[in-house]
Amino acid sequence: MTEPNVERKLVEIMRIISESDKPVGARLIADEMHNRGYAIGERAVRYHLRILDERGFTKKHGYIGRTITERGKKELSDALISDRLGFIITKIEELIYRADYDLDTGKGNVIVNISYIDKDDYENAADIIRYAMSHGASISPKVGILEEETDEYDIYVPEGKVAMATVCSITFDGLLLKNGIPTLPAYGGLMQMEDNKPEGFIDLISYSGTSIDPIKIFLRRKSTSILQAIDTGNGKMLANIREIPASAASKAEIMMEHAKKNDICGHICIGDPGMDVLYAPVERGKIGIPIMAGINSVAAVEEAGILIETHPVSTVMEYRKMELL
Amino acid sequence: MTEPNVERKLVEIMRIISESDKPVGARLIADEMHNRGYAIGERAVRYHLRILDERGFTKKHGYIGRTITERGKKELSDALISDRLGFIITKIEELIYRADYDLDTGKGNVIVNISYIDKDDYENAADIIRYAMSHGASISPKVGILEEETDEYDIYVPEGKVAMATVCSITFDGLLLKNGIPTLPAYGGLMQMEDNKPEGFIDLISYSGTSIDPIKIFLRRKSTSILQAIDTGNGKMLANIREIPASAASKAEIMMEHAKKNDICGHICIGDPGMDVLYAPVERGKIGIPIMAGINSVAAVEEAGILIETHPVSTVMEYRKMELL
Repeated sequence: MTEPNVERKLVEIMRIISESDKPVGARLIADEMHNRGYAIGERAVRYHLRILDERGFTKKHGYIGRTITERGKKELSDALISDRLGFIITKIEELIYRADYDLDTGKGNVIVNISYIDKDDYENAADIIRYAMSHGASISPKVGILEEETDEYDIYVPEGKVAMATVCSITFDGLLLKNGIPTLPAYGGLMQMEDNKPEGFIDLISYSGTSIDPIKIFLRRKSTSILQAIDTGNGKMLANIREIPASAASKAEIMMEHAKKNDICGHICIGDPGMDVLYAPVERGKIGIPIMAGINSVAAVEEAGILIETHPVSTVMEYRKMELL
Repeated sequence: MTEPNVERKLVEIMRIISESDKPVGARLIADEMHNRGYAIGERAVRYHLRILDERGFTKKHGYIGRTITERGKKELSDALISDRLGFIITKIEELIYRADYDLDTGKGNVIVNISYIDKDDYENAADIIRYAMSHGASISPKVGILEEETDEYDIYVPEGKVAMATVCSITFDGLLLKNGIPTLPAYGGLMQMEDNKPEGFIDLISYSGTSIDPIKIFLRRKSTSILQAIDTGNGKMLANIREIPASAASKAEIMMEHAKKNDICGHICIGDPGMDVLYAPVERGKIGIPIMAGINSVAAVEEAGILIETHPVSTVMEYRKMELL
């Protein structure tokens, strides 16, 4: 038994092969895996294919590709469903654990969203992101740019695309945890901005008990009006909120001020114990910390009519390697 | 202070008036309220406008319509946000309480979804719904048809549209409650159908802690392949799952068999205590009851390329007044 993520990829690769009526090669599989939201490069696909061959689930036909075996078909139908359903909070908890950025040394990983843009649209998209970032619609002004064919960070960039990593607000949960403060994001939501200030959440989706990222749901619904919020002061942006023990309030506040000096900002306020924050409910004995979503700057690109595909809370990246856009 | 629902509508009406640069009449407001998901007729809009006038929030300009006053603008900005954020489970609990259908007497209300269809598309849509229903993609073969200008059930049907009420799976929660079994829907989800049988949930969104109905999220994502599931046996349909005390299992089973005789069916199985059902997690001491969504039949219409706008878990309707399509 390999690690769960590998198993999930194995199943999805089998599914892709089984859906084709002719043999499929690694390149095509890598493209299709990317379409389905899996970050995996061609080289990694080959590695997975060898495992499948060994298990007798796929068969290699020289250089033209693989087909699925009868045994593979059976395995697929058994494994497929149980393997696809995973709650998003499990993935987020893992990334929070892996985010080890140290505010003092400047070393370590932050959590990033990954957006894919057509190469031809890249300059226009970058202009909009810069514009949005300079108006506070992000967590950090730094981004990671990944060109096609890279296999770095286990992020696969398809031909003709550029991938951009932006710092995700869940990075704050990593920082809180690293400072000994237990935390988990509670809700992702749509924030009404008025006079350039967050006025309150108008929609909320809980992070626990959903297999689809709340922020992804809002992105897909095209619920935001970020450019309008920047231009007129009034509009809808994405934000989320986490709960921490009330007794950790001052430690959290000091930590977040410290983060600001490291270019990691975006937190809105710290709530009072057990009290709603910007209309989001908070449990007794806890305080709520709402933070604007790092993804707002890239969501603005989509509002401008440029095709951009974004995976929130995607992976971790060394903050030192990220650069000003 | 009037009841919360009225307050919510008052705020939304003020918002519509404030967004226009000229006076707005009741008809236009009713249309726009409908677009925003509020079930309210023109007559009811006039009633609300009189309240707003009395409070000094709007001003009437003869027959051409209303404008918002300065006092209204202030009220709007204060009230707007807190008023819009409501968790969907609160609305569902209220409808479960109002669903008083009695399996013995055949009297009382069931919970319905409301779909709006263009009059010109109605016959084609009805054909598809009948086809889907005859293949089990619904809770009940009965529907309620509402023509434009009706004010029945507080459902507003805009000009040129027909509204269709289909029985919602949450009706089962009403039946369970009426039989003394505590219940609440836990998750809405996407169900993988294989060989015409539910194989397992592949996505789940919790009903608690979201302001957007999970089923509405899946509808908007166009995640279903209901027609394909009917035609080939394999596809994706909508379903949900509720938890009841494990000790109520046999009582629930008898009740659901009874419901089947009343043309109300769609439940898939009854789980074992504390065990996952079709990959959906179930709390210790509880059992999970997954039920196919009543909305599948109307979601199939959208798959066929016909414009249909559906509000899941919308209101209650007397089951006796509903008819075979």
